[in-house]
Amino acid sequence: MEARSRFEVTARDPGCQARAGVLHTRRGPVETPVFMPVGTAGTVKALDPAEVEALGYRLILGNTYHLMLRPGADTVRAHGGLHGFMAWPHAVLTDSGGFQVWSLAHRRKILEEGVRFRSHIDGDLHLLTPERAVELQEALGADIMMALDECAPHDAAPRYLDQSLARTTRWAERCLRARSPAGGALFGIAQGALDVPRRLRHLAELAAMPFEGLALGGLSVGEGPDRMDAVLAEVVPAMPAERPRYLMGVGTPLDLLRGVGHGLDMFDCVLPTRNARNGSLFTWQGPIQIRNARHARDTGPVDASCACPTCRRFSRSYLRHLFLADEMLGLRLNTLHNLHFMAELMRRVREAIRLGRYPAWAAETLAALGAPPLRPLDPPGNKK
Amino acid sequence: MEARSRFEVTARDPGCQARAGVLHTRRGPVETPVFMPVGTAGTVKALDPAEVEALGYRLILGNTYHLMLRPGADTVRAHGGLHGFMAWPHAVLTDSGGFQVWSLAHRRKILEEGVRFRSHIDGDLHLLTPERAVELQEALGADIMMALDECAPHDAAPRYLDQSLARTTRWAERCLRARSPAGGALFGIAQGALDVPRRLRHLAELAAMPFEGLALGGLSVGEGPDRMDAVLAEVVPAMPAERPRYLMGVGTPLDLLRGVGHGLDMFDCVLPTRNARNGSLFTWQGPIQIRNARHARDTGPVDASCACPTCRRFSRSYLRHLFLADEMLGLRLNTLHNLHFMAELMRRVREAIRLGRYPAWAAETLAALGAPPLRPLDPPGNKK
Repeated sequence: MEARSRFEVTARDPGCQARAGVLHTRRGPVETPVFMPVGTAGTVKALDPAEVEALGYRLILGNTYHLMLRPGADTVRAHGGLHGFMAWPHAVLTDSGGFQVWSLAHRRKILEEGVRFRSHIDGDLHLLTPERAVELQEALGADIMMALDECAPHDAAPRYLDQSLARTTRWAERCLRARSPAGGALFGIAQGALDVPRRLRHLAELAAMPFEGLALGGLSVGEGPDRMDAVLAEVVPAMPAERPRYLMGVGTPLDLLRGVGHGLDMFDCVLPTRNARNGSLFTWQGPIQIRNARHARDTGPVDASCACPTCRRFSRSYLRHLFLADEMLGLRLNTLHNLHFMAELMRRVREAIRLGRYPAWAAETLAALGAPPLRPLDPPGNKK
Repeated sequence: MEARSRFEVTARDPGCQARAGVLHTRRGPVETPVFMPVGTAGTVKALDPAEVEALGYRLILGNTYHLMLRPGADTVRAHGGLHGFMAWPHAVLTDSGGFQVWSLAHRRKILEEGVRFRSHIDGDLHLLTPERAVELQEALGADIMMALDECAPHDAAPRYLDQSLARTTRWAERCLRARSPAGGALFGIAQGALDVPRRLRHLAELAAMPFEGLALGGLSVGEGPDRMDAVLAEVVPAMPAERPRYLMGVGTPLDLLRGVGHGLDMFDCVLPTRNARNGSLFTWQGPIQIRNARHARDTGPVDASCACPTCRRFSRSYLRHLFLADEMLGLRLNTLHNLHFMAELMRRVREAIRLGRYPAWAAETLAALGAPPLRPLDPPGNKK
């Protein structure tokens, strides 16, 4: 049987933990480090899938929670999965639905069996078990699936956190047993809040299982970039080096570049697309707010060095006009720009790693972007 | 000096007044009969201009009223006109601003000098004179400009209607005098509500002036297709045959096909784009409402015979999902479909005229679309 996925590391930076590689999925290769745009409800908001493809993306994320509630996994399966449903020919990673159950659903209750909740759309009662999470993701046609986990709050009592981590481990085993032979790859999710010893212990439990990749969940949920960075510096080097390492729900250019420096390979976040819809646009000199009056008569592009479909054709003045006039095209052009920026940022990340100058490149880039300085990245082999 | 525009009739249907032709604008030829998508605020809502172009459109409409208020004509001029502002390389027709002053502005007052009104956006006071209307349209870079007119209500007293028509005639003369040598073509607008003798008289006044084309205003404003059709049957044959004839703000496939049969060449309307955003989609068997539950599991396209970018890739089920989930992409895919339908409808119109079988083709097409039957079209030469 063909492997569900295969990961190869093709370059390691000599000055930090960063590595570049290729994640071979059922639907083609994906160069890492990679940022995945989020296609919440079967669409990367404001874009046509052909535009996402043209920006260079070959892997996007779909949200199981949203899709199981609307239109329902059976409807997506009737289209041959998300690929047929949303006309996206490349790889799809789906989350387990767990995170949105914590953040969106009503009256949720965690049982050993799974999590019971009411839909935030119509109040209907649902039970999401590890087996159901895998079944749903297979119905969605996911090339990479995520195990069902509990994202315990950072202020959870140690006793609760221990119970939660143990349950997530049991759920992870059930997810592995539940998947069908023809299904996609499955990644486990290590939790542990900001408690490094517990994170390392949970990670070791999951690393012992035959997941095709491992993810860190429960970070970038309000703890701030400094505290997340400190946890990553200790935890990422302990993740199995031969498997892809995925930091879920991250993030800003700062978080991405630091995460790569710690040895992470995969990232996803709604930030670039959500910011775009709020009129906050990346430039290589830091973000701008397109609604500001200073752009009113500016016939130049958002970023003069940017080759995106927006900057090649449209001015700041026009984008500001569309934003103030509530014209949909503005949200789309903004989204195209921000996702192009992220794709270009990750291309430069991979290039810097191949050239073996990642730490210096990342520091220069972050300084230009106006990000706060952080301590130097750890060199390779500096495992805590 | 090169002509501001040139119109040639290339085919006449033997069975009715319909004719096909080419309107040569400063920015290239436009085949007629033509439907113009409306780009209200410098964007055809929900679409990228490259998409409008790919659908085959070479002439779109911009609204002077909207653009003069936001972002302001000077801002558009600083981009080299609407073409540079919205990245549209083909022809643009702008209205005079008059119609939106009647329909949107607050506290308007008609003076001999022009119309005074307050912006519906910020309440600022504006005076739109015939000279200012031309100046604004030239700033917008219009290839075809419209003279400022008053669209008097259909229930206006005859005495008021006579005053209004006389003033619109004086405004038309002032518009002609105001335009600059390098400006675009200028069309006059004949009014007269549903009063055929007054319409014919006003039309004769405007036809005597050197406009590059003539338009009928003040129709399709609630009188119903039957009454409009009756007025058109009497009025259109009296419009100069050697100049393009434009029916403003129209309309439905029924109105378009009847208008063409009466000898009209140009049309514009927000209906196909607005309906698309409301989930009402054209098919060659009549419109469908995409939100209806019967489309929930339908993996087929909106119209199996349609070659638009939406029908080629996406199912009714997916479009319904996007509509119910309030996803922008749905409004865009719906708009692409409806504007493709209108472009294809007009291609078939022109082909039927060239083949000399327009009346039969139009009757068959309207029957398939579920439009109510109307009386037969008048043969050519049947001038009232």
